[in-house]
Amino acid sequence: MPIPILQCDRNSKDQYSRFLLGAREDLSAATARILPILEAVRTKGDQALLSYTEKFDGIKLSQVTIDPKQFKTNIDPKIKEAFLRAKANIEDFHLAQKRESWSKIIDGNRLGVKYTPIPSLAVYAPGGKALYPSSVLMGIIPAKIAGVPSIQLITPPQKEGLPEILVWLAQILEIDRIVTVGGAQGIAAAAYGTESVPKSEFIVGPGNAYVAAAKSFLSGQGLIGIDSPAGPSEVCIIADGSANAKWIACDMLSQAEHGEDSSAILLTTDLTLAKRVSEELEIAFVERPKRLQMKQKAIYENSAVLVFPNIDDCIWFSNELAPEHLEIQTENNEIIFSKIDHAGSVFLGPYSPVAMGDYISGTNHILPTARGSRIYSSLGVDTFLKRVTFQEVTKESLETLYPFVKLMSELEGLDEEHGTSVKVRTKGHE
Amino acid sequence: MPIPILQCDRNSKDQYSRFLLGAREDLSAATARILPILEAVRTKGDQALLSYTEKFDGIKLSQVTIDPKQFKTNIDPKIKEAFLRAKANIEDFHLAQKRESWSKIIDGNRLGVKYTPIPSLAVYAPGGKALYPSSVLMGIIPAKIAGVPSIQLITPPQKEGLPEILVWLAQILEIDRIVTVGGAQGIAAAAYGTESVPKSEFIVGPGNAYVAAAKSFLSGQGLIGIDSPAGPSEVCIIADGSANAKWIACDMLSQAEHGEDSSAILLTTDLTLAKRVSEELEIAFVERPKRLQMKQKAIYENSAVLVFPNIDDCIWFSNELAPEHLEIQTENNEIIFSKIDHAGSVFLGPYSPVAMGDYISGTNHILPTARGSRIYSSLGVDTFLKRVTFQEVTKESLETLYPFVKLMSELEGLDEEHGTSVKVRTKGHE
Repeated sequence: MPIPILQCDRNSKDQYSRFLLGAREDLSAATARILPILEAVRTKGDQALLSYTEKFDGIKLSQVTIDPKQFKTNIDPKIKEAFLRAKANIEDFHLAQKRESWSKIIDGNRLGVKYTPIPSLAVYAPGGKALYPSSVLMGIIPAKIAGVPSIQLITPPQKEGLPEILVWLAQILEIDRIVTVGGAQGIAAAAYGTESVPKSEFIVGPGNAYVAAAKSFLSGQGLIGIDSPAGPSEVCIIADGSANAKWIACDMLSQAEHGEDSSAILLTTDLTLAKRVSEELEIAFVERPKRLQMKQKAIYENSAVLVFPNIDDCIWFSNELAPEHLEIQTENNEIIFSKIDHAGSVFLGPYSPVAMGDYISGTNHILPTARGSRIYSSLGVDTFLKRVTFQEVTKESLETLYPFVKLMSELEGLDEEHGTSVKVRTKGHE
Repeated sequence: MPIPILQCDRNSKDQYSRFLLGAREDLSAATARILPILEAVRTKGDQALLSYTEKFDGIKLSQVTIDPKQFKTNIDPKIKEAFLRAKANIEDFHLAQKRESWSKIIDGNRLGVKYTPIPSLAVYAPGGKALYPSSVLMGIIPAKIAGVPSIQLITPPQKEGLPEILVWLAQILEIDRIVTVGGAQGIAAAAYGTESVPKSEFIVGPGNAYVAAAKSFLSGQGLIGIDSPAGPSEVCIIADGSANAKWIACDMLSQAEHGEDSSAILLTTDLTLAKRVSEELEIAFVERPKRLQMKQKAIYENSAVLVFPNIDDCIWFSNELAPEHLEIQTENNEIIFSKIDHAGSVFLGPYSPVAMGDYISGTNHILPTARGSRIYSSLGVDTFLKRVTFQEVTKESLETLYPFVKLMSELEGLDEEHGTSVKVRTKGHE
């Protein structure tokens, strides 16, 4: 049962349409379960947090927050070096995104944009098996660079104590507070605020279905802003006959390693490459059998090689797919990339596997999934900045422009007050 | 029953807390009513649009879209001149927001951001009494500048035919299609697509509760992106004794003119100014009695003058309020503005009434309400652009960075595939 190799053109919808569903997780069941939890946290605060933590995590907390500065950590210096290298690169890439406020004279008046940070942020970090310290860097560094004044980390408690790596990261990222409450109750604590947990206006970071449902519901209520909803991880690879089939197979498997619902789509014009990649996948399953069933399900059921008659069709399909990750491994990477409109993050050339961006190169790995890159971006400094527009109108320009305001406000039936507010400032009416 | 004048400090929550609720319209009743409409449009397409239009608008359409180029319009040249002046200024201000893609070398690799437009947009323009042609400029121009390739205008049909001004604006803005279907059915047409209406990935523009409920629900489903939810219009004014009380009163009334739930909050340190503004409001009610009851309700019930002991308290309150519009009319406008963190659009000095930005100066008037400016921005070119991040890793850099990826992926339990995808590209493993 190898990976499906499908010969396609733009019309063979029956072949490829199942990959374009962009289906998100159905959160309705999870939403129903979390509503009473949200309400309890809203009304009972810390007490609800303590009792849910005892109930769901089996842990009796004495308090729901800790100050990471008060802990000693003992992290392997080599691990520290790796995370510090990643931190430096992520900082460099995101610093380059920072924007300067500006103003210019337009029609006699000074108009401009002032960039200001959102007031507060909570970053959720899942616990247990899904402990991804790299995601903590990805969530917090752009916010720090944007200048967000209040950032807290939310993470489930662990029976053996908080993972040292999280505490150390909170220390080097200068986070004042870790809220040791997981799930929907942790999200609710940040969204509503409690006696111990200050309200956060924005919440980012991956989590299970209850976390996702809580974020989505509270954002719909206008209570918090959130990053785009997380979904199964996916990669799309555009490759031609010049590509290394083994490397491509490894890149596809590194998505499959995230879960059985993950997806890897290879787009190529080269049937020989398609077959070689399929063979390399089978070899890899033998050589690296860890979590075999999961990886095979992802590759056999949710992935495919689509063989198109020409490279423009591959590009067309990639834009339709709007993948979270896109690798381009061809002899014409730049030309192909110039035609890419929709993708979360793009990896050019043979030495850019997604894992480089996941961990170390500096780009952000919190990305829109489920075709979300058609309208959403990866997490970045902009996620945490707002444009405050401003203007200073001169007396002269107000005189010149008043007749236009008069006509337009009359047309909209708003001349009595809108029109008058300008008129009273003109000569002879002051 | 004049406007309330409340002497406050930061502790007098009982006085001011009702202005900080940031309450949004409750859309639950409207949502329940639109769900069957959305489902009917999704499954029955054009036929549902025609039958809802007959039912709700009393109009039998023969088709649901028109091509504005096929119509002749006869607009007063003076009106044209006004809208063309506004268009030029809005274009200038938004062109200045356009961003260049960039790349730089970070830790040996080329990393960058490519800005690409969203694929498609629908702009909703309410009909009837709420016809605001200026909002059509505000919704479409930033999208045109972002490069959005497909833009359609959605507006309810009118018994006497579409307003000529809308058709003419669609012509000069080079819109290919007007969908003459209003309400939730018009939004559903754009969100799902029908035989005649192509699907739009993003929908912006104000509308009634059904329009707002449809946008909100469909966005929650991940089907479309939307602008921040529209709410009652509001202005906050920071003024000192140097300000003109009559002008301030006019500016407050120009918000009140939008509806009885609109709000105007004057923040000042000067009790004399407070009293003079109150008097000017009463004079204005006598001089300009049009829609008196509505304006009085907005001013007496939803507005106030808050007199704080010092200007820093006024600034603090304005940042708490995060108003849609903020006017600063003092002797130290720049200093005060430098301390403003959260506001939709700011109007500096005596000659910058909000109406200048509403119509002609060039800034966008589609702004976050209900304290939304704490985390959201006004509509702008960025609304319609995405950051596609990219990287090209060198062979040398991959060699150097592999040991870090190895350690980090081991820590996250993802070394078997993530780690391997980098390892196979290192020397001796190719």
